[in-house]
Amino acid sequence: MSQILHLTKSLTLRYPWASSPLIIAAPMRVMSGPALAVAVSRAGGLGFIGPSLKTQDVARDLEEAKNLIEQSKALQAARSSTSQTLPVGIGCQVWTDDLETAASVIAKYRPCAAWLFAPRNGQTDLDNWSRAIRAASPSTHIWIQIGTVSEARAILASTEKPDVIVVQGAEAGGHGRATDGIGFISLLPEIADLLAAQNFSIPLVAAGGIADGRGAAASFALGASGVAMGTRFLATAEARIARGYQNEILRASEGGASTTRTQLYNHLRGTFGWPEAYSPRTIINRSFVEFQAGRSFEELKVDHDEAVKKGDEAWGPQGRVATYAGASIGLVKEVKPAEEVVNELKGFVLGVFGEGVRSSL
Amino acid sequence: MSQILHLTKSLTLRYPWASSPLIIAAPMRVMSGPALAVAVSRAGGLGFIGPSLKTQDVARDLEEAKNLIEQSKALQAARSSTSQTLPVGIGCQVWTDDLETAASVIAKYRPCAAWLFAPRNGQTDLDNWSRAIRAASPSTHIWIQIGTVSEARAILASTEKPDVIVVQGAEAGGHGRATDGIGFISLLPEIADLLAAQNFSIPLVAAGGIADGRGAAASFALGASGVAMGTRFLATAEARIARGYQNEILRASEGGASTTRTQLYNHLRGTFGWPEAYSPRTIINRSFVEFQAGRSFEELKVDHDEAVKKGDEAWGPQGRVATYAGASIGLVKEVKPAEEVVNELKGFVLGVFGEGVRSSL
Repeated sequence: MSQILHLTKSLTLRYPWASSPLIIAAPMRVMSGPALAVAVSRAGGLGFIGPSLKTQDVARDLEEAKNLIEQSKALQAARSSTSQTLPVGIGCQVWTDDLETAASVIAKYRPCAAWLFAPRNGQTDLDNWSRAIRAASPSTHIWIQIGTVSEARAILASTEKPDVIVVQGAEAGGHGRATDGIGFISLLPEIADLLAAQNFSIPLVAAGGIADGRGAAASFALGASGVAMGTRFLATAEARIARGYQNEILRASEGGASTTRTQLYNHLRGTFGWPEAYSPRTIINRSFVEFQAGRSFEELKVDHDEAVKKGDEAWGPQGRVATYAGASIGLVKEVKPAEEVVNELKGFVLGVFGEGVRSSL
Repeated sequence: MSQILHLTKSLTLRYPWASSPLIIAAPMRVMSGPALAVAVSRAGGLGFIGPSLKTQDVARDLEEAKNLIEQSKALQAARSSTSQTLPVGIGCQVWTDDLETAASVIAKYRPCAAWLFAPRNGQTDLDNWSRAIRAASPSTHIWIQIGTVSEARAILASTEKPDVIVVQGAEAGGHGRATDGIGFISLLPEIADLLAAQNFSIPLVAAGGIADGRGAAASFALGASGVAMGTRFLATAEARIARGYQNEILRASEGGASTTRTQLYNHLRGTFGWPEAYSPRTIINRSFVEFQAGRSFEELKVDHDEAVKKGDEAWGPQGRVATYAGASIGLVKEVKPAEEVVNELKGFVLGVFGEGVRSSL
């Protein structure tokens, strides 16, 4: 019996290589490369390639993903059956990515989905992006990430509704809502009720704080159609991540106390101008501790730039560089192949909802 | 099939009038009176009476609860089978309640459980309270509310381990962790892993952000043995709450944006001295908005005290008084009898995990 899994089954059907329940690798900037995205899709999930430092560089990632996909019979078969869309998605950081470039890359490679987040001008920007991407590649689904009920209202009032809404809770790593975010334990059901009240059935994907089967099963119980994870996939063999960073993900625990949201590390890296609505969750290290104690930004910047030269030692409690990660870090204790992460979650969820360990539905 | 519900079944067995899955009414100060607590227990849940303004006043509430219990055959029968413990619990606000008074009241009325929270001196205070309560009433279970992994570590290192640990996530209304809290989507599994690693099997109760069957089912999927709610029970016929306050619970939505944690309302009410680790989540109204805009506390205090005289109009977006509530407010839309709240949650949870709607287990 699995009334609760009918939502994920219907979303999964849109991605013919995937099997229910749908497990998604979120598009982490730079760190979610083609190897990770393809490995997740190959395991029957849906992998997203993260935004690149420059929009045009995502073409290189998609080219590599295409080559990897051509080596997989199952993914290649799915591609033939889906108007040649690639069985991976891409993430677009709306306020910095260039729309024209993104649209032309999407037209060429046709990723199965484009996950839009962090617009500077809210729904207006999202509408422009959605229109341009749909014109460039009608088969590419639009996924929009939100973290508040207000953003859901804006989506429902728009004529460019997405194919999927990602509901990101406050526990998420990296950039999310700065001050008005909250856990999806309350947020996702409230958004689901809003959609139902207006007779919309856009699938919701839960993100933020999920790192194993328990969080995944909880998400489906709340009404999610899919489960997206970032931090858990940082600790996979396929993540495009420095060893020092990855080791810190394994070491750190107690996310409530050991992570915080702050713009400090963006500024230390020389990134300014993030829309005020967003700030990133990061593991706390010396830069933040000393900043809180009143040390000047200029001094911290000097030490930060020195630390960067040390390579893997730049991370860790005595380190100084950005270590974006979610509050679920205490649940991530070893590096695994992405395929294993996906399979473990699926097995757990199917067990919880009474479908045993059947490998596909 | 319900592997996931075995934890709640074993906790439920300790409270013979209760039926699985265990639904708990949290001890909200003053607002959780005897009528609410007994109604919840009568429905097969476990109701807690909240702390009173003065510790000795909880005796009056327990006396009334005892009378109500004597009118219920089922509860009275349960009482006979549990060394005369009352089938309701009480909450103790450790930093303000008087231990000697509390212990003597507990010795006299023997509530089935004492839920301890907000100690000034962490585990040391909790140990003293646990020892004294157990000496006063050996059959009374000790429940300890925490909001961080560190507090769980302190419990495991103590010789006075509780019977139940309540894991309160950041979405909770009223007082919770001020700065190091986080949603239980990540927190509860991490604490469960910590207990398992040290071979402890203390049941965990999830609290914070749950207001309907979806949040309850999610909690059990995460590994909870019981589910505690506060805000949802504010909107019951039995809550000891002003009409204006209750109306505001029904009206408010979008908890991430419309609530915040602040000491402002404590101070406006003349309550100072809360341990720094805690601050309360409240619905935002004019006092907070104007405070953020820079208006002086003294002016706000004058207007606050004026507003108090207006009765039910003191609450609402144009109101000025404390409106403690959780981030789940957007899920609470109507006043219901407490029994209906409990039954709806149970039915949903049993449905999700494949046990149909059998009314008892």
